[in-house]
Amino acid sequence: MDKLYIIKIGGNIIDDEAKLASFLHSFADITAKKILVHGGGKLATRLAEKLGIEQHLVDGRRITDAETLKIVTMVYAGYVNKTIVALLQANNCNAIGLCGADGDAILAHKRQHPVMDYGFVGDVDAINSVLIKTLLEQNIAVVFAPITHDQQGQLLNTNADTIAQELAKGMSKLYDVELIYSFEKSGVLLNAEDDSTVIPQIDSVYYQQLKSKQKIFAGMIPKLDNAFAALNSGVNKVIIGKAEQLEQLIAGTAGTSIINE
Amino acid sequence: MDKLYIIKIGGNIIDDEAKLASFLHSFADITAKKILVHGGGKLATRLAEKLGIEQHLVDGRRITDAETLKIVTMVYAGYVNKTIVALLQANNCNAIGLCGADGDAILAHKRQHPVMDYGFVGDVDAINSVLIKTLLEQNIAVVFAPITHDQQGQLLNTNADTIAQELAKGMSKLYDVELIYSFEKSGVLLNAEDDSTVIPQIDSVYYQQLKSKQKIFAGMIPKLDNAFAALNSGVNKVIIGKAEQLEQLIAGTAGTSIINE
Repeated sequence: MDKLYIIKIGGNIIDDEAKLASFLHSFADITAKKILVHGGGKLATRLAEKLGIEQHLVDGRRITDAETLKIVTMVYAGYVNKTIVALLQANNCNAIGLCGADGDAILAHKRQHPVMDYGFVGDVDAINSVLIKTLLEQNIAVVFAPITHDQQGQLLNTNADTIAQELAKGMSKLYDVELIYSFEKSGVLLNAEDDSTVIPQIDSVYYQQLKSKQKIFAGMIPKLDNAFAALNSGVNKVIIGKAEQLEQLIAGTAGTSIINE
Repeated sequence: MDKLYIIKIGGNIIDDEAKLASFLHSFADITAKKILVHGGGKLATRLAEKLGIEQHLVDGRRITDAETLKIVTMVYAGYVNKTIVALLQANNCNAIGLCGADGDAILAHKRQHPVMDYGFVGDVDAINSVLIKTLLEQNIAVVFAPITHDQQGQLLNTNADTIAQELAKGMSKLYDVELIYSFEKSGVLLNAEDDSTVIPQIDSVYYQQLKSKQKIFAGMIPKLDNAFAALNSGVNKVIIGKAEQLEQLIAGTAGTSIINE
């Protein structure tokens, strides 16, 4: 099977013009088939503030009301997605920007919860691997904004890490998938404050040990849970590391590799 | 050759939720291959106003400065485009929303003018008919936002009527193209104030007569010039009429048909 890189970039890269340009230059240089999944950075929050739209948080989680959905659709699927695509084109990388409604690429449903209403938040049901393969086979890089749809006309705000994981799972039937979560840290750290304490490799046994010793800082747990879920669903390799080191992450000389045993 | 409908909808339909839903229902029902080109309606202007971004006009033409480009990219390529795609999906019409940067679908250059600087406004150079055909052949309707790119990383604001015309010209090598400009009037009118005075058919000789008698109101002239330019470049038929009458426009029982002689 052909290799497919699915790379998620965090908001801190989106917010930094120079870092984004440098990352996209490295992304464009990948000769294998590739998918980019982006979040939205601080732009959506700043736009909501300027427009006087209040952000509702329940138990620390943001609620996506109708106005917030409109804003994230504009910012994620509009400004950020198209800016990335235009920059990739300038780097001689043919790219196409999609949200989950486009070509029915990512089908989701509004999150159901016994007590909480998260608003227009989507949990993924299915990936349209046929459409995505058609594009990849024409050497087009696919750039996903974290917006899905429910086939009933409703757009839904969806976590970008989850989208990357679901894409990796869904495409692993057709490709040898490597999933890369790139963010602001150099990898999974033994000491969250010290970027030189990258753990080069974590298997599920070591992960349980790290968790029981509370060596894994809170924000990493969903990322690692996602990583192991992806490995258990056919994804070949998951790497967590710094966006600025994309080439080294791909070469296996930086970041943390998550492996099954 | 297979038939391809390229349909442009005006801003007044975008701004009216019920009209848009009804139009998209009719569009979804077209069994032939189809492309939709949309403008942005009043949403971009309203968002700019709310954000306190001044609209600069020179000789009555809006200048697209960097902030305005950001807004039209968000509104046209983000909110409007994805809302339309999600609604088409709900009507069992598989659709994909693109701007000109996506898959290098529409290449343009920043408008050059001896005295005026229109800002980030694009004039179209080329249509990627191969990519568009690949999507159409999978029975995917392509929905275009009026944003193009210059292959150097710059997004450009581009007139939606012009995009529809350029798509029609570019696709006419591969398909039997019918171009429909749908807007708020029932067609080209003999009396601009009276919607019952639709001219059923206009050829180039009659057009010159109407113009010389000043029977054509100002806003129609660029539309008709575009229509004749399209016919002269291989497009089979151009129809101008009311968006609410899409089925009749396609059946040839409403609107104005523009023909070469």
